[in-house]
Amino acid sequence: MSYPDYVKLVEVGPRDGLQNEKSQVPTEVKVELVNRLAAAGFANVEAGSFVSPKWVPQMADSAAVMGAIERRQGTIYSVLTPNMKGFEAAVEAGADEVLIFGAASEAFSQKNINCSIAESIERFAPVARAAHDAGIRLRGSISCSLGCPYQGEVAPEAVVDVARRYLDLGCVEVDVADTIGVGTPRQTAAVMAAVARVVPVERIAGHFHDTYGQSLANIVAAMQVGVAIFHASVAGLGGCPYAKGATGNVATEDVLYMLHGMGIRTGVDLDAVVGIGLWISQRIGRRNESRAGNALAAREAAACR
Amino acid sequence: MSYPDYVKLVEVGPRDGLQNEKSQVPTEVKVELVNRLAAAGFANVEAGSFVSPKWVPQMADSAAVMGAIERRQGTIYSVLTPNMKGFEAAVEAGADEVLIFGAASEAFSQKNINCSIAESIERFAPVARAAHDAGIRLRGSISCSLGCPYQGEVAPEAVVDVARRYLDLGCVEVDVADTIGVGTPRQTAAVMAAVARVVPVERIAGHFHDTYGQSLANIVAAMQVGVAIFHASVAGLGGCPYAKGATGNVATEDVLYMLHGMGIRTGVDLDAVVGIGLWISQRIGRRNESRAGNALAAREAAACR
Repeated sequence: MSYPDYVKLVEVGPRDGLQNEKSQVPTEVKVELVNRLAAAGFANVEAGSFVSPKWVPQMADSAAVMGAIERRQGTIYSVLTPNMKGFEAAVEAGADEVLIFGAASEAFSQKNINCSIAESIERFAPVARAAHDAGIRLRGSISCSLGCPYQGEVAPEAVVDVARRYLDLGCVEVDVADTIGVGTPRQTAAVMAAVARVVPVERIAGHFHDTYGQSLANIVAAMQVGVAIFHASVAGLGGCPYAKGATGNVATEDVLYMLHGMGIRTGVDLDAVVGIGLWISQRIGRRNESRAGNALAAREAAACR
Repeated sequence: MSYPDYVKLVEVGPRDGLQNEKSQVPTEVKVELVNRLAAAGFANVEAGSFVSPKWVPQMADSAAVMGAIERRQGTIYSVLTPNMKGFEAAVEAGADEVLIFGAASEAFSQKNINCSIAESIERFAPVARAAHDAGIRLRGSISCSLGCPYQGEVAPEAVVDVARRYLDLGCVEVDVADTIGVGTPRQTAAVMAAVARVVPVERIAGHFHDTYGQSLANIVAAMQVGVAIFHASVAGLGGCPYAKGATGNVATEDVLYMLHGMGIRTGVDLDAVVGIGLWISQRIGRRNESRAGNALAAREAAACR
């Protein structure tokens, strides 16, 4: 079985992880979180979101976060930008990479942003042009790539179609996102292989949620078709608006434990991430959802006795 | 990628799952648990343990449980038997299958049962002979097949050596058990492939714990080398004495969700198992550790509103 030698991890905890937290997380906590994650060795830290604070109040301070963090050489600080207003704020804040997002499900696109998939992507064209002109990396996320809370199944061709549009817009990376965590390994392999027919596989990222506990199995399946970029969230920060009380993004510690155990390099210090996971969970009063994080912390505690 | 069409699941919740519970679970709850699991379609339900009640007080009522359950046609009711005394009690109780257990780690064998691996397996010889004479299925479990809390790494050859001894004793199934949940997919595939060189692959079972969240990824890796029997525990019942507070056996619901999503038959009714998981977790006051179980229950609850 062939696996990549190196996997690039995008740590999405500060954005996708925190954005659904009900109580406002203090700006200084977000700043410390981003700084500690960058120091742990992530190639890319998703640091915030320049959406309307009416939609996502938790991310209202993203400019302040970006302004206060220490910029670490070699780390890409990425942010979400839905439109030109968000893009301009992101540039102002010094983002290295901006993330645009559409869905592979027409039903989701209509319900979520009240327009078709094609329209939603056309709306990103000015952002894409501006990013190109400003020399800022553009990344495109495809929501509901493995299933939709409204329409159920999503055809791989629908995912491929969005991926092709993203390439045309100049995206350097295309994120195949299982927004609601419903996918299983065979389907994951099939969708990744389909996308790899239009996007060079080294530019495809897998974004999995552990709603049904399937993420690591899906990452294995994705790696077997050549995908070598994955998103993860420290302590499994995040949730699922479509399954109350369910777990969120796959926990970074679980991914790191698996990859390092498989001899795959990431450049990330697992022990440091375990410490960050314990700290942020305690700091925001949330259960640490990382199984590897909890087990390694317990082992550490036992060794100290 | 090739996967089996059918996977046989051994539901170990009533034994491996419950055995570490601190408060005594009432006999009638265990009986209901076994009955409901059998009705959900499991080919094999591990129903109890005939070890000394001094070692495992939670299992002291296994004879009473076996005596009170409804026997479902087609279900194998298996129990753990460390010695002839346990075996005789198991026969008396009407067990269909007895389980013997040794370790692949010398350090674990010495610390746990105060003898070498070879000695521990010799001690099972009378049980094996008696099982053969009585026409009772014999199953052998290899603890610490992917790592040991005392010695750390375990060589695949050590696992193969125990597997070979089990075959010689007449075991119809050999369980490759990651007792402390430390294994990752590449290692799992390597160990399973090594064991498959001496044991026909259709007689190898994978027994994974979710201590580090690796179970489903390991099941995928094991299936890719042909393994098609797996152990799982409803609601993820169980724990890890070597990592306090860590999760236990892989949750049956998560395994079922994955297998059915991959188009692999199990004969088990996932919805029924989700219901059993909710019931037993609530009944014994324990968090339901199945991610698929919790998500499916949340989806169900939302649909009912």
